[in-house]
Amino acid sequence: MSHPHPELGAPGPLPEAGLRIVPLGGLGEIGRNMTVMEHAGKLLVIDCGVLFPEDHQPGVDLILPDFSYIADRLDDIVAVVLTHGHEDHIGAVPYLLRLRDDLPLVGSQLTLALVEAKLREHRITPLTLAVREGDTEQLGPFECEFLAVNHSIPDALALAVRTGAGTVLHTGDFKMDQLPLDGRITDLRSFGRIGEQGVDLFMVDSTNADVPGFTVSEREIAPVLDGVFDRAERRIIVASFASHVHRVQQVFDAAHAHGRRVALVGRSMVRNMGVAKELGYLSVPDGLLVDIKAVEDLPDDKIVLMCTGSQGEPMAALSRMANLDHRIRIGKGDTVVLASSLIPGNENAIYRVINGLTRLGANVVHQGNARVHVSGHATSGELLYCYNVVRPRNVMPVHGEMRHLVANAELAVRTGVPSDRVVVAEDGVVVDLVDGVASIVGAVPCGYVYVDGSSVGEITEVELKDRRILGEEGFISIVIVVDSATGKIVAGPEIHARGFAEDQSVFDPVRESIVRTLAKAAADGVGDTHQMQQMVRRVMGRWVNEHYRRRPMILPLVVEA
Amino acid sequence: MSHPHPELGAPGPLPEAGLRIVPLGGLGEIGRNMTVMEHAGKLLVIDCGVLFPEDHQPGVDLILPDFSYIADRLDDIVAVVLTHGHEDHIGAVPYLLRLRDDLPLVGSQLTLALVEAKLREHRITPLTLAVREGDTEQLGPFECEFLAVNHSIPDALALAVRTGAGTVLHTGDFKMDQLPLDGRITDLRSFGRIGEQGVDLFMVDSTNADVPGFTVSEREIAPVLDGVFDRAERRIIVASFASHVHRVQQVFDAAHAHGRRVALVGRSMVRNMGVAKELGYLSVPDGLLVDIKAVEDLPDDKIVLMCTGSQGEPMAALSRMANLDHRIRIGKGDTVVLASSLIPGNENAIYRVINGLTRLGANVVHQGNARVHVSGHATSGELLYCYNVVRPRNVMPVHGEMRHLVANAELAVRTGVPSDRVVVAEDGVVVDLVDGVASIVGAVPCGYVYVDGSSVGEITEVELKDRRILGEEGFISIVIVVDSATGKIVAGPEIHARGFAEDQSVFDPVRESIVRTLAKAAADGVGDTHQMQQMVRRVMGRWVNEHYRRRPMILPLVVEA
Repeated sequence: MSHPHPELGAPGPLPEAGLRIVPLGGLGEIGRNMTVMEHAGKLLVIDCGVLFPEDHQPGVDLILPDFSYIADRLDDIVAVVLTHGHEDHIGAVPYLLRLRDDLPLVGSQLTLALVEAKLREHRITPLTLAVREGDTEQLGPFECEFLAVNHSIPDALALAVRTGAGTVLHTGDFKMDQLPLDGRITDLRSFGRIGEQGVDLFMVDSTNADVPGFTVSEREIAPVLDGVFDRAERRIIVASFASHVHRVQQVFDAAHAHGRRVALVGRSMVRNMGVAKELGYLSVPDGLLVDIKAVEDLPDDKIVLMCTGSQGEPMAALSRMANLDHRIRIGKGDTVVLASSLIPGNENAIYRVINGLTRLGANVVHQGNARVHVSGHATSGELLYCYNVVRPRNVMPVHGEMRHLVANAELAVRTGVPSDRVVVAEDGVVVDLVDGVASIVGAVPCGYVYVDGSSVGEITEVELKDRRILGEEGFISIVIVVDSATGKIVAGPEIHARGFAEDQSVFDPVRESIVRTLAKAAADGVGDTHQMQQMVRRVMGRWVNEHYRRRPMILPLVVEA
Repeated sequence: MSHPHPELGAPGPLPEAGLRIVPLGGLGEIGRNMTVMEHAGKLLVIDCGVLFPEDHQPGVDLILPDFSYIADRLDDIVAVVLTHGHEDHIGAVPYLLRLRDDLPLVGSQLTLALVEAKLREHRITPLTLAVREGDTEQLGPFECEFLAVNHSIPDALALAVRTGAGTVLHTGDFKMDQLPLDGRITDLRSFGRIGEQGVDLFMVDSTNADVPGFTVSEREIAPVLDGVFDRAERRIIVASFASHVHRVQQVFDAAHAHGRRVALVGRSMVRNMGVAKELGYLSVPDGLLVDIKAVEDLPDDKIVLMCTGSQGEPMAALSRMANLDHRIRIGKGDTVVLASSLIPGNENAIYRVINGLTRLGANVVHQGNARVHVSGHATSGELLYCYNVVRPRNVMPVHGEMRHLVANAELAVRTGVPSDRVVVAEDGVVVDLVDGVASIVGAVPCGYVYVDGSSVGEITEVELKDRRILGEEGFISIVIVVDSATGKIVAGPEIHARGFAEDQSVFDPVRESIVRTLAKAAADGVGDTHQMQQMVRRVMGRWVNEHYRRRPMILPLVVEA
């Protein structure tokens, strides 16, 4: 989806009193959130996240937003505002800072701590500006007011941007838990105040817009965890996301109440909880935490292991426990809790882990059989509250696949926003706010940029297509050395296949056909190795298709010597 | 999972008065259901289905049960009983009949019609014996009584098998819809009668054993469909499974009530509904069906297209419509209904289709936003009824992944079956019923047999591992021709990569290293091409890892000429 609106051309120049919104990621997908705002010749970047690849992008490590739209305007960027510390909002910051390392990063204390920890691994020390809810900062021509929002990570912010062209309210990722663990609710009162002053464009998280009703409070997980801990006879292993401080807090609280000690497992879990504890977002009773090595000296019913791997990631501790490939040997009577969502696409991997743990005798508690997870995103009931409090003039759904964006747009219309003032745009679609009206004015390139090992942007759809063919069908290489004078074969055909047939002798019949074909070609005076390669490819391709009904990649190589 | 109980050895001989149960598929997975019963020297096969591959089995078309356990005892098989016509119960029959084509197939009228249609494509005409509920057939030493069960395909049967060693009741796939469309309920009364006579082993469908409560009646879909048809302004496209006759019937009824005509789209849909109509399982009002070509002449609000592709299969009509690659051009105001389940692992593909259709302006109705699907399998509430009515002496959960089998076992125990009489076994685990007690006595090989193009069982884990590496990382081939006398390079290194780097010039630096390495080897008197290949592999491997942090497959070939 490099260009979702092919009918759109490049946008014209932005009118002087206008505000331009260019979503470079996160609209039409869940991930790599990044939006560029332009006004009075300056740019404000909101978020800079990564997208995780799907099956049809094999071998890819990460997907970045395409920075080409801003690559030659880096000096115009006044700041990069980060709404919260999740990977899909901060993960691409190191790659953006490679282009200009003194871009100021603006965000809350926890968000900046997490992005700084990440940047340290890339050996980058960023310029930062810490803000908190209630603060207002003038960033070039953008006056930014930061508002508290509640999400599945502490210290998340929404953002009101006042410009000469009007006011934009951007929710970031949020939900409306009315009794959050830290008491920090989404600041609906300020949403109302800013709405009263006039919101020209409301950019709203769409992730759960197609889910009816309201999200249950994070707090309701506590009694469920409590019941699980009551019934657990031996060890308890809890897997969750390494950034979900409140979820981890609830596990700590349950462990403490039940006289159990907790060991953190997994690099990101240890790192993030260290940051959260240091900054006061995580409260850890004295003596609760123990090292994983100390666990072996404790009785089974005094142990909680808090780990990552809730999405079935094969190298994470939980998968390795399920495969008996970890120092913790799961056995009968152990309890495993997957306190996390089931991200679409990960089902088979997660169920493989659940089946493996079940086979070993563990009691596995997960979203499917107990309320051990609640979502971090506002569902339709909550979104309706927001639209009714803000009463925006224009709406632009953000953060979601097409089905989510459209569902969110429909909610806006149902609260009374005129449908021609609701802009459903995908990545790269340029929206201008001029004279109080938001409209689509064109599109810019915004393809997938693949991080693949240490390469960034070098792997393209061509390589991915080759990988898909190789992965599905394997390949056959045929090497033949011919005499450069006579064209006669002096060595080969050497035939090697991978992913296709284990026994090389299956190729004996086709080897003869190839020799015959090339002998005839030599007799006919064909001397061009490229032509000979095409002949070899044809003979092999036809033979494989006839005998195996397969279409492996075929690589003929005729070398003159 | 070729040998899930590695501690188990081959089973000893079956005691003369015993009954042996060997599950060759379906226990520990959803699919390729197949069970072999042995008594008095004879074998009875129950079902013979296929499993669909997952992502880690790339390129594989189908997975069959491993027939090796019965391969040298084909003459002892008295019959193959097919409980119903789904692929995971009949799909491997053609491959079994390749081993012995006069194996008698026993099943209901619709089941046999579907398997015969499939066998015609394999040019096999089977021996068949049609049975219906209430029938009893003596098949060798197995007296089989057939019982009606309700499922997501008509004419499904459960099976009571009476032998000298005791009575086994096998549910097949079933649920307990109390108001099914065809009035054919699961025959709980007969379950009770046979239980009264004594069920020594109860083999029970586990698919939904971890789902609380009861399955809603298929009938409850009708009012939902009716509402969708009421609101639809233009065309209606319904996607479902090609075997779900009752679901299709409800679409036909809704279309008829709303004065719309129906065109069937997709080969399997056309074939199966033809069979169902001919045998009287599907009632089609006169003039309802039209050819897909006639659709273009009808007004949009008079059209229903009934198609396959509800799982996001890329080549199916629905995916092609979502990609604007189908004669039916989806547009604003069209309604698409996915009247089907969301099979785990297919989420991304299905959401891609939903997003594509939404982008084109269609209103997409699916399980996530309307009750347009109900499951075909009994949930825990229904299973409890069965255990309480049958009161079996031993229980063996079938049809499910480990998590389902264990959940089903727990239900049996909660109704009073002693836990040591509940046998949780996976594929290949041999269970003997002797003196009224079922117990695990050993295991037999039961690996995955892959159908890959026209090859059956030739592709192994080795090729699949190669495919996974090729698919994730691509490969690099290096061909060098050396003089057989001097060892000096006479042609090459020719370096070709696929799925790795598009620009071949990236290899220039490593090409020089390879030449240097081989020159040094020649100077040192290394003359063995195998050794030279190892050197080339090492140089290339190290270089790629250092420069790209990747591990593509490396294929060095040194040819003497």
